[in-house]
Amino acid sequence: MPVHAQPFAGPVADSSAELPFLRGLNAAPTLLDIRQSLEHIGPYLQQTPVLRSAGLDQLAGARLWFKCESFQRVGAFKMRGALRAAIAIEPSERSKGLATHSSGNHAQAVALTARLMNVPAYIVMPSNAPEPKRQATLGYGAEVIPCAPTLEARQKTLEELVVRTGAHFIPPYDDFNIIAGQGTSALELLESIPELDILVAPVGGGGLISGTALAAKLLHPEMQVYAAEPFAVDDAYRSFKSGALQVNASTDTLADGLRTSLGLKNFAIIRQHLDDVLRVDEQEILDAMILVWERLKVVIEPSAALPLAAVLRYSKLFEGKKVGIILSGGNADLRELANLL
Amino acid sequence: MPVHAQPFAGPVADSSAELPFLRGLNAAPTLLDIRQSLEHIGPYLQQTPVLRSAGLDQLAGARLWFKCESFQRVGAFKMRGALRAAIAIEPSERSKGLATHSSGNHAQAVALTARLMNVPAYIVMPSNAPEPKRQATLGYGAEVIPCAPTLEARQKTLEELVVRTGAHFIPPYDDFNIIAGQGTSALELLESIPELDILVAPVGGGGLISGTALAAKLLHPEMQVYAAEPFAVDDAYRSFKSGALQVNASTDTLADGLRTSLGLKNFAIIRQHLDDVLRVDEQEILDAMILVWERLKVVIEPSAALPLAAVLRYSKLFEGKKVGIILSGGNADLRELANLL
Repeated sequence: MPVHAQPFAGPVADSSAELPFLRGLNAAPTLLDIRQSLEHIGPYLQQTPVLRSAGLDQLAGARLWFKCESFQRVGAFKMRGALRAAIAIEPSERSKGLATHSSGNHAQAVALTARLMNVPAYIVMPSNAPEPKRQATLGYGAEVIPCAPTLEARQKTLEELVVRTGAHFIPPYDDFNIIAGQGTSALELLESIPELDILVAPVGGGGLISGTALAAKLLHPEMQVYAAEPFAVDDAYRSFKSGALQVNASTDTLADGLRTSLGLKNFAIIRQHLDDVLRVDEQEILDAMILVWERLKVVIEPSAALPLAAVLRYSKLFEGKKVGIILSGGNADLRELANLL
Repeated sequence: MPVHAQPFAGPVADSSAELPFLRGLNAAPTLLDIRQSLEHIGPYLQQTPVLRSAGLDQLAGARLWFKCESFQRVGAFKMRGALRAAIAIEPSERSKGLATHSSGNHAQAVALTARLMNVPAYIVMPSNAPEPKRQATLGYGAEVIPCAPTLEARQKTLEELVVRTGAHFIPPYDDFNIIAGQGTSALELLESIPELDILVAPVGGGGLISGTALAAKLLHPEMQVYAAEPFAVDDAYRSFKSGALQVNASTDTLADGLRTSLGLKNFAIIRQHLDDVLRVDEQEILDAMILVWERLKVVIEPSAALPLAAVLRYSKLFEGKKVGIILSGGNADLRELANLL
């Protein structure tokens, strides 16, 4: 059964014409930047719980603390970065709205952030995006603009949109404000569980892992930080090992949140602050996801299972250690996943 | 996304040669009995959170508060009753251990309770019980005694065992201590969310619903309390309507925790305190379970989905009301359920 090492907090602030302003970052966030980001966006976030499981500890041969961003607003850590980027917009500039391209959790995070600001949200989404994701984004009141399912079409459609509407682009990961925002989850975890030896988070575009590595190493330089990545899309591993940014030839992984390639700013930060990238296979992702569902009773999406999968696969690295794991999100397509069990 | 109306508490007491003593009950629990039960067993329980979801509220046309016993120790409310019954045993009598017959959550609850008391647990389990349930019970350190899969064989095997070992029988539901223990979940919910108009809980043997109805009506006589039951095993409905205890001809429901027939003491209490029994079909159970998984990000077992299924089916009863729902447990067999999606 799960043990709750940290309390859930009460309800969050639910509307605000007066979202605060916090100047945007032009360089990699400092610890103070991450702290200030959390102070400013905290009132609009869910305080996510940290859960434990004696059974999972036994299985891993380590002590595990799970920071459950699946319970974050929109069901993923992405809300943190979107809020942080949005409050960097001058209040007088906000009324034209927010824009991004995404078919995943970032789309919903930008949509909800815009709703909290009472401004329009424009989400460019490939025409082959799953209908539930489109519906969820519409449900937050965003306008969804379809485009052809190529990166080129996404960017072109977004550029035209920004020119036409004047809306502010909220990038998904390759941005210092986003990185500072995503780092607030690790900051919360480390402030509530200061005795951790190691942190593990998944890597896709790298917003979460770069923020996590910064927060961890700036707070506790001796702490180890690992990224967990699917073998099928191991551009972060190859980039980290070769020292030059690599891309993915395929996107063939269950972990739909990790199919994007690493961003440039994210790469620069992980080169400096990450200990290693640990790769896992598809079966390990699925098995770890089910373990979290069954043992913690928390629904996570496949991408969120990567860290536990890595802890179980590379168990020697973690033996007897106190390990913090970021459960990045809970927006799983249950009926699709059911076919794989 | 879920909103957390009540905090998770910190870690629970994890060992105790000194579980307290609280005299057993020979009549239906009073409010004071339920309160005293909670005071005594509370330190050994997980404080379970109360979650909300704007999306589910909208779907139901009502305001819903979910009391998540899926996060309780052993993953179900059953831990409450087992602890309450066990502390009624005189300390000098405890060393011979605890015994019960069950293939479900009650088995694990008795096993963990015995472990907390440092005494043996003997669990009679039909030979066709699912292997994961057997393993989970063994995992809590219990001795599992197989028997033929009939009620008669269960009872005979248990009686012989009790005679042979001197262990104390912890009944699953038809017992005033168990009823008082199960009522502590509703008591916690009502003390944290006093504005509720209605409570809904599932009914199987009736331990949870009788404790829930007692706690609710004794605390707020004007509150409405409904039981939710599968059409396929509607003995509680037929008993409630006819005034005479009925049994089930079949056990053909997904809600494996609700296949047992209503107990006598439980029936007497619900006749007096329940407003109605609301029946739902198998598809409604499955759909409500998936809704909770997707919207609250909490894994519940099919039996725990009954109250939401009833709120959605009988929406006129709940329109605009503040409704408390007991999510009774989270021990779902995911690979089996996956076949149904």
